Amino acid sequence: MSAPPISYAALQAFIERAFVAVGIPQADAQTTASLMARADLIGQDGHGAFRLPQYIRRIQAGGVNKTPKFHIIEERAATAVVDGDNGMGHLVMHHATELAMKKAETTGVAWVGARFSNHAGPASLYAMMPLKRDMIGLYVAVGSANHLPPWGGTEMLLSTNPIAVAIPGAKYPPIVLDMATTVAAYGKVKTAAQRGEMMPEGWMIDCDGNPLTDPTRASEGFLLPIGGPKGYGLALIFGILAGTLNGAAFGRDVIDFNADDASTTNTGQFILALDIKAFADPDRFRASIDNVWEEMKSAPKMTGVSEIRLPGERLDKVTRERTEHGIPLAPALKAQLDDLATRLGIAPL
Amino acid sequence: MSAPPISYAALQAFIERAFVAVGIPQADAQTTASLMARADLIGQDGHGAFRLPQYIRRIQAGGVNKTPKFHIIEERAATAVVDGDNGMGHLVMHHATELAMKKAETTGVAWVGARFSNHAGPASLYAMMPLKRDMIGLYVAVGSANHLPPWGGTEMLLSTNPIAVAIPGAKYPPIVLDMATTVAAYGKVKTAAQRGEMMPEGWMIDCDGNPLTDPTRASEGFLLPIGGPKGYGLALIFGILAGTLNGAAFGRDVIDFNADDASTTNTGQFILALDIKAFADPDRFRASIDNVWEEMKSAPKMTGVSEIRLPGERLDKVTRERTEHGIPLAPALKAQLDDLATRLGIAPL
Repeated sequence: MSAPPISYAALQAFIERAFVAVGIPQADAQTTASLMARADLIGQDGHGAFRLPQYIRRIQAGGVNKTPKFHIIEERAATAVVDGDNGMGHLVMHHATELAMKKAETTGVAWVGARFSNHAGPASLYAMMPLKRDMIGLYVAVGSANHLPPWGGTEMLLSTNPIAVAIPGAKYPPIVLDMATTVAAYGKVKTAAQRGEMMPEGWMIDCDGNPLTDPTRASEGFLLPIGGPKGYGLALIFGILAGTLNGAAFGRDVIDFNADDASTTNTGQFILALDIKAFADPDRFRASIDNVWEEMKSAPKMTGVSEIRLPGERLDKVTRERTEHGIPLAPALKAQLDDLATRLGIAPL
Repeated sequence: MSAPPISYAALQAFIERAFVAVGIPQADAQTTASLMARADLIGQDGHGAFRLPQYIRRIQAGGVNKTPKFHIIEERAATAVVDGDNGMGHLVMHHATELAMKKAETTGVAWVGARFSNHAGPASLYAMMPLKRDMIGLYVAVGSANHLPPWGGTEMLLSTNPIAVAIPGAKYPPIVLDMATTVAAYGKVKTAAQRGEMMPEGWMIDCDGNPLTDPTRASEGFLLPIGGPKGYGLALIFGILAGTLNGAAFGRDVIDFNADDASTTNTGQFILALDIKAFADPDRFRASIDNVWEEMKSAPKMTGVSEIRLPGERLDKVTRERTEHGIPLAPALKAQLDDLATRLGIAPL
């Protein structure tokens, strides 16, 4: 028995009520709720309302600053480091992305990093923000818990450190790559556990190197990087660029925000905005991206493959479906949100 | 029977002689030869002198412009698009990287793309150039031949599209990730073929999806991307950023430079230079990279693993060894270079 689908507006309003109830100022609650509900709208089920009970727990435990003041620590024409003052990650990266777009408008490219940020939801949210200004977005984050060791090791010093890149087309949807540097993102493990499903071999191994397929045993093993040592290399490099370079946590300093609600995480992220107008006529560029889309789609297919997909195609399809028909919520999640509403004394979904 | 190792200086001088013999101006021959010999020095055996006979063939067939004039097509404070006028890729990207570093000195970050460039050797050469100025380098190229289809397809529309990132440490070597978006780079396939070795399963599959392990049959199959659809997504995104965005070839427009010596390839690449000084005190940053190095190295190891390695560690070790003891050349390669010397009427190695 699934609950009836929820509209984006209703989900956004509910999340906003929850944040206001725990003391987040109205405007900030609205911005954060918009981004979180958008995560559900675009099909990133592990990063939207699913995270709300945890975020609320962190706020109530004092792990997140409800009224942060952002500071610019370093700044050049095309770069900045923003100190997020331990505010909600969504607010910090929304601010950082706005700043990057403003700079790139003049300089052609801009790179804005953040320290003392927090978990900010799916990477594609921020990579897609520059699209509306004829810009390409690239976002990288230090994940909010370590889930893999360096290649050959058994101590989890690295997170999945995701990357998202968004590139606009004309008549086709934007190409949006949003991927963890591991075969599976940890959010997918959590979703499988919540749904009572087993994981395929190849997502995780245990400390002896054997396949781990039961998501409820996830804490006994670690995620596998893509391409073995290559994925380890990407996780390391992305962690340095999004974490170390900004003075944010990386390696042993990363707080497992699934296990610890009270400590400041000092999460690091960065956004790069690239102004297409600094490289080419935007209309011609968009047409050339449509051409790329058509080339890939029209390639002959392997036996048993019904369709070749572009990164971002499913995101676009899900977004359209959910905009029209609403966002389906798993019964377990709906129950959690109802329980949260009762505890916070707010109107339920 | 191996040939005796060759010094960097001797290899550089030989490559320079070869280029001068086919009409490349002295200064350009020297720059290109320095970068190619450096590729061998750092252990990128598939991208140094190994490529010389092919490059010479292309120059003699008119596929490369011996006296290019570089033009800036578009420019902003932190960006530029360089038209390489079909010159040697090494020259184009050397020029582009110098320009990116100059811009980043002021703006904090710079992104310089190239069109009408050519194969430029290993990605790490360019990513490492900014290190000496307290900068991080990031280089991406459209590979010079398509070797993989979009995920689920059988038409090879994508190249291995490599990425390299170089980050300086203090007492430890720089962290240098240099990877193709495929499990194996095509250069490794060529090296295996030349050495008469078989490839492990997982590098390539044939058109029916079966493992292909004989490198002499490489033309019958295609390379596998890392993480399946994720590697496909990376190859696609990197191809767009290094190719399409610069007005360079991508997809069906890519010329297979292994099969065609005469056509202009319109190869695209880009370099990003990030000035560490725009983010943090460089000495403190380098020390924090040393700390990352030590953390990874000191992690407990899986059974059977003797050492945890950092990306760039082998490169540094090989560079030291070859600087001291010389560069070993495979007998087949030495014979090819001797033959080239005879044909060009230059002193052999």
